This record gives sequence, structure tokens and C-alpha cells, in this order.
Amino acid sequence: MNTSEFREFGKSAVDYIADYLDNIRDKKVISSKKPGFLQNKLTKSTPINGDPWQDVMRDVDQLIVPGLSHWQSPNFHAFFPTSNSYPGIVGELMCAGLGAVAKDWISNPACVELEVKMMDWLAKLLDLPKEFLNSSEGPGGGVIQNAASESTLVAVLSGMARSVKNEQILNPHRSEAEIKSKLVTYTSLHSNCSVEKAGLLASAPMRLLATDKHNRLRGHTLEEAIRKDREQGFIPCCVVATLGTTGTCSFDNLEEIGLICRRENIFLHVDAAYAGAAFVCPEYRHYMKGVDYVDTFSFNPHKWMLVNSDCSAMWFRDTSEFSEAYRVQKSMPETEIQPHKEVYGIDIENWQIPNIRRFRALKLWFVLRTYGVQGLRKHIRDQCSLAEYFTELLKVDDRFEVLNSVMGLVCFRVMGDDSVTRKLLEKISERRNLFLTPYTHEDRMLIRFVICSPFTQKEDIKYAWNEIVSTLNLILDVERIKG
Amino acid sequence: MNTSEFREFGKSAVDYIADYLDNIRDKKVISSKKPGFLQNKLTKSTPINGDPWQDVMRDVDQLIVPGLSHWQSPNFHAFFPTSNSYPGIVGELMCAGLGAVAKDWISNPACVELEVKMMDWLAKLLDLPKEFLNSSEGPGGGVIQNAASESTLVAVLSGMARSVKNEQILNPHRSEAEIKSKLVTYTSLHSNCSVEKAGLLASAPMRLLATDKHNRLRGHTLEEAIRKDREQGFIPCCVVATLGTTGTCSFDNLEEIGLICRRENIFLHVDAAYAGAAFVCPEYRHYMKGVDYVDTFSFNPHKWMLVNSDCSAMWFRDTSEFSEAYRVQKSMPETEIQPHKEVYGIDIENWQIPNIRRFRALKLWFVLRTYGVQGLRKHIRDQCSLAEYFTELLKVDDRFEVLNSVMGLVCFRVMGDDSVTRKLLEKISERRNLFLTPYTHEDRMLIRFVICSPFTQKEDIKYAWNEIVSTLNLILDVERIKG
Repeated sequence: MNTSEFREFGKSAVDYIADYLDNIRDKKVISSKKPGFLQNKLTKSTPINGDPWQDVMRDVDQLIVPGLSHWQSPNFHAFFPTSNSYPGIVGELMCAGLGAVAKDWISNPACVELEVKMMDWLAKLLDLPKEFLNSSEGPGGGVIQNAASESTLVAVLSGMARSVKNEQILNPHRSEAEIKSKLVTYTSLHSNCSVEKAGLLASAPMRLLATDKHNRLRGHTLEEAIRKDREQGFIPCCVVATLGTTGTCSFDNLEEIGLICRRENIFLHVDAAYAGAAFVCPEYRHYMKGVDYVDTFSFNPHKWMLVNSDCSAMWFRDTSEFSEAYRVQKSMPETEIQPHKEVYGIDIENWQIPNIRRFRALKLWFVLRTYGVQGLRKHIRDQCSLAEYFTELLKVDDRFEVLNSVMGLVCFRVMGDDSVTRKLLEKISERRNLFLTPYTHEDRMLIRFVICSPFTQKEDIKYAWNEIVSTLNLILDVERIKG
Repeated sequence: MNTSEFREFGKSAVDYIADYLDNIRDKKVISSKKPGFLQNKLTKSTPINGDPWQDVMRDVDQLIVPGLSHWQSPNFHAFFPTSNSYPGIVGELMCAGLGAVAKDWISNPACVELEVKMMDWLAKLLDLPKEFLNSSEGPGGGVIQNAASESTLVAVLSGMARSVKNEQILNPHRSEAEIKSKLVTYTSLHSNCSVEKAGLLASAPMRLLATDKHNRLRGHTLEEAIRKDREQGFIPCCVVATLGTTGTCSFDNLEEIGLICRRENIFLHVDAAYAGAAFVCPEYRHYMKGVDYVDTFSFNPHKWMLVNSDCSAMWFRDTSEFSEAYRVQKSMPETEIQPHKEVYGIDIENWQIPNIRRFRALKLWFVLRTYGVQGLRKHIRDQCSLAEYFTELLKVDDRFEVLNSVMGLVCFRVMGDDSVTRKLLEKISERRNLFLTPYTHEDRMLIRFVICSPFTQKEDIKYAWNEIVSTLNLILDVERIKG
């Protein structure tokens, strides 16, 4: 393929995307394909000779898009949002087109410096502690990770390293392996499953602690768990608190937890994957109370801040807790002209798991520059007010109860036992006009309704409401006839 | 921004990329910017009001691109290639534009099924063992990971899980934590630094074993290391063999290593991050001899197979060794309409660290479809023949010695002690017309020359050769005058 074909191909893809997004309301949000639908539509192996790009684009349209569940559809209210925005898309395109990844500074100065700067922009935008800034005097800093799962794993590993170090000061004869076999970590029962997985991956068992009735982890529960573990010879090393849980967007009591972690010298990570984006609005920042106790903080601009996946932001109070502990002895082939930490002062390549970073900072910059602070606040506030509007609709109909309505997430159920709520969700999912997901709270089933797509408007909420009510009416009619 | 602005913005980015790549020879391959160059060029924080996209694109051109080291330049011969190709770029654009990620099957059927299929295409393309295919009857399968670092970490964790399981069968009273504190892993001194890091991250110390004089790990060295460790009560759990080391593109003796791993029931992972792409050509497959002993195998299509970063391919002989060991107890909010493993038979979301996958399979498909088997083979063979051409040029000039010339990598030095070689690399780097990196082999410094860019032609090799020779002449002239 030569450049002029690429111009044609690329522009046709831009038009395809624009048309796809313009007409996304016309598509059933959940694909109605059956498992295995694609397997026989594609050849068994790579074609011997290459096909023209036009054939590939035709197959995208005929084979792939009908098999999508449409995460950008205004009728997608499942899980949490996965961002896309026009500037985010073009940012990703530019990242791919320049094809320039980075290791250390000299391997790609613009990539490293833009990421360092963007993480400062983002920290200021959320009003995070000054110690987290790359431009701060101290050892703090921020970096883009691949996913919240990765940020959490890096945090847990940092906490483990701190505990090993501290324990070896107190008991110099204890081996690292022996100490590590005693490490335990904590989170709430309602944190994302990736938190439990981080404990498994790091071999630092993650205790899933009970919450109060609002799904919040409280200080006294943590305190009691730590006490019991210490009694049994375990070494508590890390707490992962959640601001905005996946199930019900609940907020752990960070201030209570932080005080305990400070007192016990336990590493404290905050997973604010979804809700972090809302902290661009001052009115939501009260949820962050206690953030001054936090060692690492992560949120995903690729969830609710219009930056295309992947882009998980992570800040450290002291980056060396990770970078020093997991620094390899041998070196990659190094350039001789390398201005390293000594020169540039920042070694972000050691704050992550892989060697190499993509130029993800570009799309973050594209979004922050073109939206500006006001545009981002408007996005969050518009989405929250759509959730409020949906909540109002629910409250008018006394067959429903609203269990929770926080930011862009509304949790509701049908009054009575779970059977009707379950049937309602099943029927809605079968109809494929709305994508909703369930959660269980205090042994009762609830339905999560999340404002996900940036295209969702008030009309779409009305549409969803009508779909829910008419489905419920159908179910109740059938039951009445049966009865 | 509305759709029509996006069309304009996106197409202008396509043109920018085409122009950038068309004119990439005109740019110094290493940026001549000084550390900190970008910090004062950008505002201190996010602008209050958004800027027009035209301003952002202007700043890309004036601030970012001059600060790049140009990984796609035909004069970039450092590290290893990081792929980009026109179909790969458009694939990444489509992935961003559709904005559809995947968890389990129903969350995005096309994304899951295309990835499953593409990994089979790729496995067949490299002639990997049939047990690795997703379509095989057994428990094997392949999945796209973020980076080779991540693939290696997943492999090491799988090996740890197997050893814990086996050990607990033999010694039911031994706790998991106690067993884990005894686990050790092995690789060669010349494996990529991410392998050593995987051991650190997983708390399974990675022994860096000596190699033969061709930088290959041999069976007897591994055997001896295992014996010593067992004597001291350690439990050998995983070996990471490299096919195509970063320094000199050396190949561990997989057959010898495999036999020992099989006998000792030790998990065996292959890191073929760079060289794996060459196995599309049958003439390179002899390097894979012994692959039938391998438990997991990884290579990076985003290195040398024209698929834009990130795309690291990883296959398992038995996916359950990872997925079962690191399966979380609690669940994400699940949909009720979910055809899970029982229905579709493949749960790729459990073969990786994060919860979510991007639709990376799209760009892999775009590349495989448009190049075809023949196009990919031509790409590899063309690049290898450029390396051979460079080797011939070196051999004619008796001031140089060639230490190694394998696939797209040539390792050379100036005869005599290291001082002239070192000066040569320093001078070349200062001039910024070529990007080369050093390595140390048997206490002697060598210069690595890698064919990286898909745009590199014979004329570019001549240019590089002239640059090297003229720089060497200058250095020798100066020495002569001094002398």
C-alpha cells in the first residue's frame, strides 16, 4: 500500500466512523448474533495473497459491526462508560500514525515530556495533593497505565515492598521470602474484582471486608481486621479503598481508613476508576476527603473522561517505593547519549510493568485541550443530570424503588421479592434495545442504569424509561392472566 | 465538536500522517531537543475553555514532532522495530472509532470472536503446535496481551501456580505461602530485562544463568542450576527461554531446555518478542526446534510484523493453569443473558491481567488480510536481506569486525580495544543522523544495527554505511593528529 492509497483508506475509515456514530441509535445495542457467528464467516487461515482494503472495510461493515455490542450507543447503560470522543479518536490515530513509542527520555523526548506534563494538568484538574505532581520538588509523580487493574497491581506491589523494607529494619535476620509469605492486603467486598485479582497475582491475599449498609468500608472494620491478622502473625501491607464502587458507586470512608493506614504505616491506594472523572467538578470533591493520607491514586480517563481506551492515570506520593524495589540489575541496550534521571529528573519507564509506553499522552492532550476545564465539567454535569432525570421518572412510579442514585449511576428494582426484577432484566436483555446489568445489594437484586454514552440525551432516557415500563407492564399482565 | 468537524479533523490527521511518513527521511532521526524543552511551551494547566482542533494540530507540528525520535525513520536502527503500517494505523483508528471494548462474550461478541480467530490465524502462520489453537479440542488457546512484559509475567505466574499445586499434592500440609517462599525461576543473562522484572514482580527470584559463547542458554547450565537450588530446598517452577535475544538475537537451545523442563515438570515459557515474526518464513523455523515442550509462547506482532503497538501475542498449552489459579471469588456485575464458557467455550477475559480488552484484534486482522502470507514473508525477507547487505559492506572494510548477523540485526565493532567503538557510537549519536545502540558481549562493546523501519531501502543502508565510515575516518584522523 502506498501513501495515496493510505489517504483514501484512512479517510474512508474516518467517514465510516462518523456515519457509524451518527446512526448508532438505529442499531440494537446488544448484538443479536449467536455464539460462534464469526467463526465460519472468516477463512480458516491467513489468505495467501493480500486482499484490497476495500474488501476489509466491506467485511467490517457486514461481519464485524453487526456482531458488536455498541458501547457508544445512547442505549448502553451497562457496566461503566468506556470513553470515546472525536478528539480522543483522532489522538489515537495520531499516536498510531507517528508510530513512536518510548522507553527512556532520549528514545522519545516528546512522548515522555508530554506525558509528564499531562499528568500534572490532570492532577490539578482534580485538585489532587501537590505532592503527586511531576513538577513537585519531592519524589511524587504521575504516569499513564494500561488499566485500573494494572494500577492496582503496581500499588499492591509498592505496599509489599514497603512492608518488606520496614520489617527488615526491625528484624534484620528475617528473609524477604519469609516476610512476603506473611503479607496480607485489604479491600471491601464491593471493590472491583480486579482488586481481589491484584492480591492473587501478587501473592498477598486480599481480605474482602464487610461494609456498612451503604456499601462503604469503614475504619473500625479495617482496624479490627488488621488487629486479628497481626495477632496471627500476618503483616498487613496494603489497603485498596474505592471511590465509586462498580456495583453502586459507593465511597469508602477515606478519612477513617487513611488515619488507620498512617498510624499503622500501611500503604494506601485509591481506586477511583469511574468516579475520579467527576472530581473535575468542585461539588464532588468532598468524596475525596482523606486523600492526603493516600500513597497512590488512580482513575481512568478512558472511563468517564472522553479519552479513548486505554488510559488509566496513576499518581504516586513516592515513585521510588515501586521503582527501587522492582528495578532490574541488568540493563536494556542503552544509548550512550542518554540524559537519564540525573538530567531530566524523571524516570517514568520504571513506574510501570512494561518496558515501553505508547504515546497515549497525545490523546489525553487532544481531549484536555479541545474540551478545556469548562467542557469537561459540562460533560460530567450533563451526564449526572440525565441520571437525576431518570431517577425522577422512577420515583413517580411506585412499583419501583430507587436504592441509590450517585453521579451517573442509578440502582433500582421492582418492589417485592427478586422474581419480577429478575424477569424484567431478562426480558429487557432479550429485546436488546437497552443494555443493563444487575447487582446484588443486601441479598436483593437490583438493576444498574449507568449513563455511559456521550451521545445520550434526555430523549434517550425517555426511550429507556418507556422500554422499561412497557416491559414491566407486559410481565405483570402475563402474571395476572396466569394468576 | 460535531460529526462534520470530526470528518475534517480526522482527514486532516490522515493527511498529516501521510505527509509525515512521506518526508520522514528529511528529519534527524534523534531529536535534538534539550531535556525540559516542552515544559515551558505548554500552559501550566488545562485551558479553561477548549481550543479549536486546528490549534492542537499546529502544536503537534511545531512542538511535538520536533521533539520526537523518529521510530519509523529509515535511519532508526536502535533497540528493535516498533511496527507501524498503513493497514495497522487504520485498524487502530477503527478500534478507537467504534469505541467498543470487551469483557466476556456478550459484552462484545465480534471483539471476542475476532481475537479468537486471529490468534488461530497467527498460530498457523508461524506453524506453532496445534495444541495452542483456540479451535483445538484441548485446553490450549491464544490471546492478545499488552506487551511481552505482561506475557512473561502471566507465564511466570502460571508456572508458580502449577508448582504450588504439585507441591501440595506431595505435601498436603505445606501452606501455599510457605511453598511460594521457596519458588525460583530461570532465564539467561541475555534475556530481556522484562524477564528479570517478571521474577521480581511475582516474588519468584529469577536466576540469570550464564550462556555459551554464542549467548545461548544450554541444557547443562540449567540442569546444574536446578540441582543446586533443589539441594538448598528451593522449588524450581519456571524457565523463560528466549528465541532472539535483545542484545544479539541469540537463540536458547530450546530442545535441551525443553527436555529438562519436561523431566522436572517445570513450566516453560518462550519469549520470541522480536524473532517470532520471522517464523512466518519456513526457513527460520528451525530455531523453534523443541517448541513441543513449551507451555506458553509469546511474540510481538507490534515489533516486526507491521501491527501497530500494542499487540503482544501469547499462546497457552493449557489456559486453565493461569485462569483457574487467578480466578476471583466475587464477580463483576454480570448480565443475565450471558453465554459464558459453557456456551462459547472460551473465556479469554481470564487469560490476562486486566478485566477489559480493547478491540486490538481489528488491526491484526487488517494487517493479515491486506498483506497476506506472501506479503508478510516478503517483508521479513526484504528486511533480512538489507541486514545481509549491511554485513557485506562491513566485511569489506577490515577496520570492522562483525560479531553476529542474524535476521534483521547486525552486531559489529571497530577492531581493537573498546575506545574507538565507543567514540564512534558517541559521535554518530551526536550527529543524530542514525540511531544505534550498544551492547556488551564477552566484555567487549559492540554496536547493534537493526533494520527497523518498513521504509528502509538499500539506499538508506548505503547512507548509514557512509555515515559510519565518515565518522570513523574523522575520529581516526583526529587521533592521528593527536598522536
